[in-house]
Formats: sequence, structure tokens, C-alpha cells
Amino acid sequence: MKKELERLKQIDKELYLLKGMASMLYWDRATLMPKKGLNFRAEKLAMLNKQMHEKATSNELKKVIKTLSKPNNYKKLSKIDKLVVDKHQKKIKKLSKIPSIHVEKFSKIVMKSAAAWEEAKEKKKFSIFKPYLEKVLALKVKEAKLINPKIHPYNVFLDDFEEGMKYEDIKIIFGALKEGLIEILNNIKKTKKYKQQKDLLKKMDFPEKSQEVIVKDLTKLMGMEADRSIISTSVHPFTLTVAADDVRITTAYREGQPMFSFTSTAHEAGHALYELDFDPKLRYTILADAPSYGLHESQSRIWENQVCRSLDFWKFYYPFYKKQFKCLKNTDMRNFYELINQVRPSFIRIEGDEITYCLHIIIRFELELDLVEGKLKVKDLPKAWNKKYKEYMGITPRNDAEGALQDMHWSEGYFGYFPTYALGTLYSAMLFTQMEKEGITKNIRKGNLAPIHDWLHKKVHRYGSTMLTKDIIKRATGRLITPEDFLSYLKEKYYDIYGVK
Amino acid sequence: MKKELERLKQIDKELYLLKGMASMLYWDRATLMPKKGLNFRAEKLAMLNKQMHEKATSNELKKVIKTLSKPNNYKKLSKIDKLVVDKHQKKIKKLSKIPSIHVEKFSKIVMKSAAAWEEAKEKKKFSIFKPYLEKVLALKVKEAKLINPKIHPYNVFLDDFEEGMKYEDIKIIFGALKEGLIEILNNIKKTKKYKQQKDLLKKMDFPEKSQEVIVKDLTKLMGMEADRSIISTSVHPFTLTVAADDVRITTAYREGQPMFSFTSTAHEAGHALYELDFDPKLRYTILADAPSYGLHESQSRIWENQVCRSLDFWKFYYPFYKKQFKCLKNTDMRNFYELINQVRPSFIRIEGDEITYCLHIIIRFELELDLVEGKLKVKDLPKAWNKKYKEYMGITPRNDAEGALQDMHWSEGYFGYFPTYALGTLYSAMLFTQMEKEGITKNIRKGNLAPIHDWLHKKVHRYGSTMLTKDIIKRATGRLITPEDFLSYLKEKYYDIYGVK
Repeated sequence: MKKELERLKQIDKELYLLKGMASMLYWDRATLMPKKGLNFRAEKLAMLNKQMHEKATSNELKKVIKTLSKPNNYKKLSKIDKLVVDKHQKKIKKLSKIPSIHVEKFSKIVMKSAAAWEEAKEKKKFSIFKPYLEKVLALKVKEAKLINPKIHPYNVFLDDFEEGMKYEDIKIIFGALKEGLIEILNNIKKTKKYKQQKDLLKKMDFPEKSQEVIVKDLTKLMGMEADRSIISTSVHPFTLTVAADDVRITTAYREGQPMFSFTSTAHEAGHALYELDFDPKLRYTILADAPSYGLHESQSRIWENQVCRSLDFWKFYYPFYKKQFKCLKNTDMRNFYELINQVRPSFIRIEGDEITYCLHIIIRFELELDLVEGKLKVKDLPKAWNKKYKEYMGITPRNDAEGALQDMHWSEGYFGYFPTYALGTLYSAMLFTQMEKEGITKNIRKGNLAPIHDWLHKKVHRYGSTMLTKDIIKRATGRLITPEDFLSYLKEKYYDIYGVK
Repeated sequence: MKKELERLKQIDKELYLLKGMASMLYWDRATLMPKKGLNFRAEKLAMLNKQMHEKATSNELKKVIKTLSKPNNYKKLSKIDKLVVDKHQKKIKKLSKIPSIHVEKFSKIVMKSAAAWEEAKEKKKFSIFKPYLEKVLALKVKEAKLINPKIHPYNVFLDDFEEGMKYEDIKIIFGALKEGLIEILNNIKKTKKYKQQKDLLKKMDFPEKSQEVIVKDLTKLMGMEADRSIISTSVHPFTLTVAADDVRITTAYREGQPMFSFTSTAHEAGHALYELDFDPKLRYTILADAPSYGLHESQSRIWENQVCRSLDFWKFYYPFYKKQFKCLKNTDMRNFYELINQVRPSFIRIEGDEITYCLHIIIRFELELDLVEGKLKVKDLPKAWNKKYKEYMGITPRNDAEGALQDMHWSEGYFGYFPTYALGTLYSAMLFTQMEKEGITKNIRKGNLAPIHDWLHKKVHRYGSTMLTKDIIKRATGRLITPEDFLSYLKEKYYDIYGVK
């Protein structure tokens, strides 16, 4: 058994290193690689993915796990080793249910489907994408049934992204959330300020050099260690972990969106802190990861919104910020704070404000659940999409590119993924509320963000995936997931900004 | 046999992709990686190196090569496939002679030896390094005897770096070269200009931003395609091939050495053009490489020296160059040309000028040959070193760091490597002389460098290692290696600069 445990640790380490190499290749592709290097890069990534897949499903690993999970052996394992064995066992069991012919068929369809989505979006024609989405959806539902015919396919999908969460719970949570959000949005829409507000920032000149100064300063404030991380630029900002001491984020300097580099940095650096903070005991193991996409997202959104878009933050930060940008000479702090917290329903999810963002997600969740359950046909998706946008936000997309073709996730079979964005938002509000109760957040206005980082490190980050998300949230806040904290937070903040009585 | 050929191509491709991944990791380490990422990076590189070693010496590959090299099969192979089989066969044969216990012992010693060299250099004390150099030397000589006890160990070493070259030839070539160089150097030293010359550039201000403009412009002029290459910065400039369409160079902006970024870019871009120009038919094969270090070096030095430090080059380039740097307002072209071509014996090889550089190399060659033959004891190396510097260049190192400890190569067992720098210099002069004869070089003063690149592509680059260096040189110039072209070139250029009659 000692031999098997050693071997398991070795395989886990190899998988960890291979994953880090793949991340390195992705990073370089998005930030630096010369254009024509793409084909070779794809070949290298395919080679690494094949190696990882073979290693994670090898007969050797199966035998090792089988031996270690025998009751007599299992009971002698340390707590962490038990969790490692459990996680591998679950993964192997799941993968073993899917015949390789299905995997092959699916990956071929996905390639074509992604290309069709791209063409459809460019031409703003859903009909080009329709037959592929039908196939992808059918294959994913089939896959879910192969994995476990007894449970709802959507719950099978959720297991990959938000382990422990059920669609039945999401329906209830999102139901209350939707109601609350629509109420807040409607209250805001009635105000004079909403009707008169204009996006003045768009027309101001924020030189890139000064934005870079802010980006660097912000990550330092947040506690992202410079000798363990890197900041670079890419078209779409992202975070990637090359190794436990080598976590990388990107940002982008976009014309006409001067705050984009600031908010995207707060967001990605939030992800990066999580990745940098796993307990070193988990190093090289399958547990050195977040337990769910939602919890990971909570760590980016808490910094992006609750911390870095708050009045407390700008009270201490604005004098320094203002010094970097001549264009803000005549803009006072309160004015600036209101400009960066404007609410405005729009078609594009990734440009959504704090109020409307979750409505974008709820719409996607409701639609994909209906698709999976067969209540909605793919051909009727654009109509259903537009109807919900009208109903929840009062706007109607002018074409499919702004509508049902907006995100590429469905083309790759990512059903059950969108809800994690909203769940993360709810976790972030719960964690922030708890920090307020414990007196942690009062440090923000003093310019001291270390206590926030320390609290998150202690209550969330260090655990990796040794616990399920709901257990981490329960321990940290004493409560189960609820939209209440988020809705209260929004009311307090935005009713003040818009003068809602 | 068809199956074996397919398999060989597959293995070659896998080796190619793995090598490219390792290059990617090295590149990132030298240009970008956060400081604390080092340990993880070392683990990843060790993993890749192990994979490559196992693949290159696997029983499967041995069997494939054995089958394909049987006369009946071999004769049916294409010309390129024959060469691929030959090259693998030679490599396998060589590696099979060295027992793995020797490899292990050597790699352990090298690690310690490299660390000892570093400490010794810092403390300027050769005695710290001495016992390790003794061991490394003994093991390398033993290895050479294991590989082939019948031939001179130095020729075994040369086979790795400059296939087809023998130490007996180098002795003759370097003998004539040394005599010629010392004569030229002494003639220059006697001139009034040499005695009065000062390094005025050192005191001028060359802003980095403008140096960057020049670096970009220069690589474009040389024909380094922007969609197949990258320029970045690192402490020591280098070139790395990530893939056939992804070749990367670095430069450095050094204070007090304003020309460093220019000359190092010309040098590295010269290497890069070679790597970018291999015949696409050789893609993924073991032949997509230069046949020797010397020939690769010739391609960097021809651009760095013969092209980009020539009077013809500056005749067309100086007006544009001058525009970038205010400090050159009162410096005319001829003046500038003389300043960037100053001759001055110094201790540091990598700062050597065109005349003294090869003397640095010849000293190392003579010393390492004596060490290998046992004519010189390691303990006597510093004395022998200093004696040669005094004799050939008229200067004496003040300490071991400036002397025998200067380069790290010996600490890693790189005997037989240094000569390739001087051999490359001689090849570059031969190739340039041939281009002059064919009327190619007259394009330089017109600002058109494409014909130079095209000629090198056609005569050298495209072949990869389908031929030995001497055959490529013979075909391109009609002659065998000789120091004459280089010495004539130096006399013509430097006697003009220094007014030697």
C-alpha cells in the first residue's frame, strides 16, 4: 500500500506539471505568440491533452486507486490522502461510463459547432448555428444519461461545474433573485438621475501609461505578490496558473472604456489570489483547485465589485487616482463613484452592470434548462431569448449576434456552466456581509486591504477543494446560499446612488 | 517497412514538439517568469528532458531504425528518409556506448561543478573550482574513450559540435589565424589613432525607446518576418526556436553600451533567419537543424559584423539612425563608423572586437586541448591562461574571474565547443567574400538587404543538416575552410580605419 500511495503522488504530480505546461502554452498563445505559430501550438496542446487524458484514465492509476480504496487500506490514509483517493475515484468512475467512441464523436462535432457559431455570429444568422447546436445538445444529454440515467441531466452537468448544487435549488434561488433584481431595476429606472445620466468617462482621455501605473498599484494593494505572479495584456482578460508560485493575469487597455483595465484587473487579481493561496500541503495534488467555478468567481467578483467599486474604496483611493489623470481635474470623488457605477440594461452580458449582470445569467439558465428538458426546441431559441430580454430588462436585441448567438459556450456543450457566474456573485455578497459583521471591511476606507485578503485566505482560499463549496460557505458565513445579502447590498448601494426613496 | 517509416516520422514529430515545448519554457524563464516560479520550472524541464531522452533511446525507435536500415529496405527510402535514418542510427549508437551509471554520475558532478564555478567566480578564487573541473574533465575524457577508444578524445567532442571537423585541422587553421591576427593587432597598436582613441559613445545618451525603434527596423530590414518571430528582452541575448513558424530572439538595453542592442539584434536575428529558413520538407524531422554550431554562428556573425558594421551599411543607414538620437547631432557618419569599430584588447571574450575575439577563442582551444591531452594540469590552468593573454594580446588578467574563470562552459563539460565560435567567424568571411564575387553585397549600400538574405537562404539555410558543414561551405564558396578571407577582410577594413600603411 505504501508503494501505491507513492505512485499516486507521483502521478498527481505529473498531472500537475503537465497541466502547468499546457497553461504556459495557452498563456503564451494569448499574450505573445507570433501569428503563424498557431498550428504548431495546437499540435503541442493536443499532445499534452492526450498525455493528461491517458495518465488520468490509465489502468495503472485505476489499480492504484482500487488498492488504496479498500477499507483496510483506506482507513490508514491521512485526511488529505483520503480526499485525493475519493476525487480520483469519482473522476475515474465518471469517465469510465462514457465510451471513447462517444468522446471522439463529441469532440468532432464541437469543432464544427464552434466554427459554425463563429460564422453565424459574424453573419448574425442563427440558422447557420442551429443544426450544430441541436447535435451538441443531443450528445450532451446522451452523455448525461450514460453517466447516470437516474438523475436529471442538468444535475449531471452541474456536477462538473458546481459540485453539490442541484438545478432544483438554482430555480428557487434564481426565482427570488430575479424578482428582487427586476424590482430594484424598475425603481432605479424611475429616477430622474437614471433618465439624465450620461457616460461621461467614455469621452475623457485616460492615457495607457497611467492606467498601467494604476493596474500595478492595485494588484500590490490587493496583495498579489510580484515575485509569484505576472501581469500582461491580451484581447480578453484571463487568469492562468502555471504553477503554485507562478500565477498570471492579463488585462486590456480599451479605448472608450477607461475603467476596463481597472475592473478587469481587480477581477482577475481576485482569481489569482485564490490560486496563490492554496494550502502548500495540497501542492501537486488534485485538490489544489477551487471546489467549484462559482466559488472561484466569487473571489473575482468580491474584489471587482464589493471592494473596488465601493464608496469606501474610492474615499481613500481617489486622490491618488485623480493625480494620474488630468481629465479628472474637475470631477469630484462622489461624481466619479457614480459614473463608474452606472446602471443601464444592455444586450451584452460581459458589459453588464452589477444589477443587470445576473439577469443575463438567469435568462441563459432558464433557456438552457428548457432546452435540456426538451421544453424548448433549438429552432425557437432566438424568439424565446428575445422575449425574456424584453420581459426582464425591457430591451429587445436587434439581431441574433446581440441575442442568442452572443456567447460561444453552448457551441462547446457548456450547459450548466452559466449559473456559476450568478452563484459566485451571491457567494461574494454573503462573504462580504460576513466580513462587515466581523468588522473587517472598515479597513477599506483606511486604504488597508490586507485584512480582506487575509480573511478570504483563511476562510476560503487555503482549503482548495478539500471541502465542497456549500461547506466552505457554511463555515465562513454560518448560512446556506441565499440571494438576500446580494439584494440588500444592491439596494443599499444603488438606492443611495440613484436617490430611490 | 511502411509501418516502421510511419512510426519513425511520428516519433520524430513527437520529439520535435517536445523540444519546442522545452524551448517555450526556457524562453519564458529568461524573459518573463516570476522569480519564485523557478523550482516548478526546473521540474517541468526535467520532466520534458526525461521524456525526450526516453523517446530518443527507446527500444521501439531502435527496432524501427534497425528494420529501416536493412539494405533491402534502406535502398527503397527517399533521400531525406535515408538521412533521417542515418542520423538516428548514429545517435543511438553513440548513446548506447555510455552506460546510464556514467550519465547519472556526470550529471550530478556537473550540477556541483556549475555551482562551484559560480562561487569561485564571485570570490575570484580558482582553487574553489579546481577539484570539480578535474572531475568533469576526467569524466568527459572517460566518456570519449567509451564512445570510441581508437580516436582522439577531442575529436569525439568535436563530433557533437562540429561534425566532420578534426582537432588536427583546427590546429593548423588556428595557427595561421593567430599569426595573422597578432600581426594585424600589432600594426593597429602602433598607429596614432589607436593611441588617441576614446570610447565617446559610452558617454552619450541613447534613449531606450529609440533603440527599440532601431531594433525593430533592423530585423525588418534583415527579413525576419514579424508573423513568424518575436523580439523580447533578457539579461543575455539569445535565439530560441519554439516551432518552425515561431522563432524568438531577445536583446538587452545596456547602460553605457548604446550599440549593444543593435549588434546583439543583428547577431540573434542572423541565427533566427537560419532557423526560419529550413526547407519545409525537413519539418518535424531530426534534420531541421544546423549541421554544426560553427555554421550557425557564421549566420549570426555575418550579419553582426560583415553586414551591419560595414561602411556600406552605415552609408545608407546613418541618416535614419542619426534622426533617432539627438546625441549624434555633431557626429558624422565616418566618425560614427570608426567609433563602433574600435579595436581594444580586453579580458572579456563577449566584449571582444572583430580582431581580438578569435584570439580569445584560440587561447581557450589551445588550453582545453592541452587539458584533454594531459599536457596541462588543471591546477596550472590560471597561470597558463594569463601567459597566453600576455603573449597574444599584451594584457594580463588582474584576477581569476577576469581570467580562467571567465566562461562557465568548462564547468558543464563543454570541451570542443569554443572553437566553433572562431570557425563560424571564418565561414562567415568566406561566405561574404563569395557574395562579393557574385555581386550580391553591392546591394548593401543601396539599403537592400534582401539579396543577402536570399543568397544565404539558398546556399546555406534551406539545407538544414542534410549535408555536413564542410560540404555546404564547399558548395557555396568552392573552397575548404581557410582563415585567408577573414584576415583579408580585417586588413582591408581596419587598416583603412586606423590608417595602417
